[in-house]
Amino acid sequence: MSLLTIGTVAFDDIETPFGKAGRIIGGAATYISWSASYFTNDIKLVSVVGDDFPQSELDRLKSRGVDLEGLQIKKGEKSFFWAGKYHSNMNGRDTLDTQLNVLADFNPILPKSYKNVDYVMLGNLTPEVQMQVIDQLESKPKLIALDTMNFWMDVAMDSLLAVIKKIDVLIINDEEARQLSGEYSLVAAAEKIIGMGPRILVIKKGEHGALLFHGENIFYAPALPLREVYDPTGAGDTFAGGFMGYIAKTGDTSFEGMKKAIVAGSAMASFCVEKFGIQNLTDISEELIAERVASFEKLVRFDTVL
Amino acid sequence: MSLLTIGTVAFDDIETPFGKAGRIIGGAATYISWSASYFTNDIKLVSVVGDDFPQSELDRLKSRGVDLEGLQIKKGEKSFFWAGKYHSNMNGRDTLDTQLNVLADFNPILPKSYKNVDYVMLGNLTPEVQMQVIDQLESKPKLIALDTMNFWMDVAMDSLLAVIKKIDVLIINDEEARQLSGEYSLVAAAEKIIGMGPRILVIKKGEHGALLFHGENIFYAPALPLREVYDPTGAGDTFAGGFMGYIAKTGDTSFEGMKKAIVAGSAMASFCVEKFGIQNLTDISEELIAERVASFEKLVRFDTVL
Repeated sequence: MSLLTIGTVAFDDIETPFGKAGRIIGGAATYISWSASYFTNDIKLVSVVGDDFPQSELDRLKSRGVDLEGLQIKKGEKSFFWAGKYHSNMNGRDTLDTQLNVLADFNPILPKSYKNVDYVMLGNLTPEVQMQVIDQLESKPKLIALDTMNFWMDVAMDSLLAVIKKIDVLIINDEEARQLSGEYSLVAAAEKIIGMGPRILVIKKGEHGALLFHGENIFYAPALPLREVYDPTGAGDTFAGGFMGYIAKTGDTSFEGMKKAIVAGSAMASFCVEKFGIQNLTDISEELIAERVASFEKLVRFDTVL
Repeated sequence: MSLLTIGTVAFDDIETPFGKAGRIIGGAATYISWSASYFTNDIKLVSVVGDDFPQSELDRLKSRGVDLEGLQIKKGEKSFFWAGKYHSNMNGRDTLDTQLNVLADFNPILPKSYKNVDYVMLGNLTPEVQMQVIDQLESKPKLIALDTMNFWMDVAMDSLLAVIKKIDVLIINDEEARQLSGEYSLVAAAEKIIGMGPRILVIKKGEHGALLFHGENIFYAPALPLREVYDPTGAGDTFAGGFMGYIAKTGDTSFEGMKKAIVAGSAMASFCVEKFGIQNLTDISEELIAERVASFEKLVRFDTVL
């Protein structure tokens, strides 16, 4: 089934304790699309780049089943650029540079063929742009998911609250859930956030896994313990892409179906962090994904205790 | 089967954002014994108190199947006392006062009936005292587990390294595993620590669950998401008590058996933090424990993903 996604398609400079990578391909929608492409080949991308963005990268996305009709290419302009440096132990990062470029006045336009899709994944962007996408849809999708970040809570809380009223699934990390709700306990945070509109909440906890709040039900998927994390950039987007890609593949939005989607997203994120940028996401295969998912299953399975 | 445990039996002053409790019953061996008592009624306690320790509390332990022959009661002396204050959000604590009292020159003496036990849980104490217990055993137990803390790594690393060579299971938290190994990645830390002697490593991650490293196998049990944590004191000891109590009950030290013991320990720890001190541990029932374990199972179960 079809998956519409919006987010940045961009260049990144990344420095981690393991090395540096200059002007590599990044952006939330890039990670989301690559990750989802292992589950569905009907992905509709909405984004904007300058004419400095390599056509070869766009061709690679197209070959994965990503429709680029909704990707605006601005002549004479530059793509969004972000530079960041991770702290030792990867438990934080500093933004060294942000150049909005084409993103400064991004006006997302949905092609006709995008207006009746099954699933929507709104990647991290200004809440106003995320809302513009929802407003252009002609029929109600089966599920709309949205990712955001603390920055928008600081500078555009009203717009953010307006857009999350319109969605089904909010995907954020633990610190963002605490900031959005004003609650430290994630259980209390989830109750408040679900009162704000989304009926389902996914809280990403990085190396500590992810929580799914779905009605009265809670599911906790641990993260695969990894020997080293080389570059966490895009891990959250990759998780979201795998999660929504899996749902687009199965069409199952029940609690049981979403649990499996969480595991699929977690498996994809574990690949993402093993190499710089999107490198590992472009190199893997469905067989490797199946092996990784099996490792997850093995990691958490146990027999009845009492 | 029999479980020998050593650790403090003490008084605590505790302050958390939810309130204060003065001079309540605490100590690692108290939590371990109470927790284990829901799985086995053949517990042999080694510890020391002053004559200020209430007999009624000792009677309660005895009624749970805890043999107190190895508990020394020092006339005219005072029991160990600890006072601590938790930070907001419970993500750290400050020790306000420590009065060793009877612990200053504690010389553990194992009664004859303690020298041939099936299982041993060495609670957090000086590594020299933990070693003295091992040295007095006449036959090799089926499993020796040991808990320790960063303090002993700072001041008694050589003694600690000597005692962990003699044990089967090391139970520590994530920061302690990092300090002991010098590795940030818990996978790398586990490999190094297993090279130091114990063939099994349990890493407690608090609200993020627990990891079990057993040969080539890894198991990750999440923690039950709780609305509020009222008092984390003793949670690690309660986990260890439930873990070893469950193993003493089942006699199963295989990877599959230990996974279930981890879940049992996690369930017990989740009760511990819901009230101050040992209050909740003394109030629960086997039925409540079965319900809690079932909640754990529900929290992490999912169908085959691919």
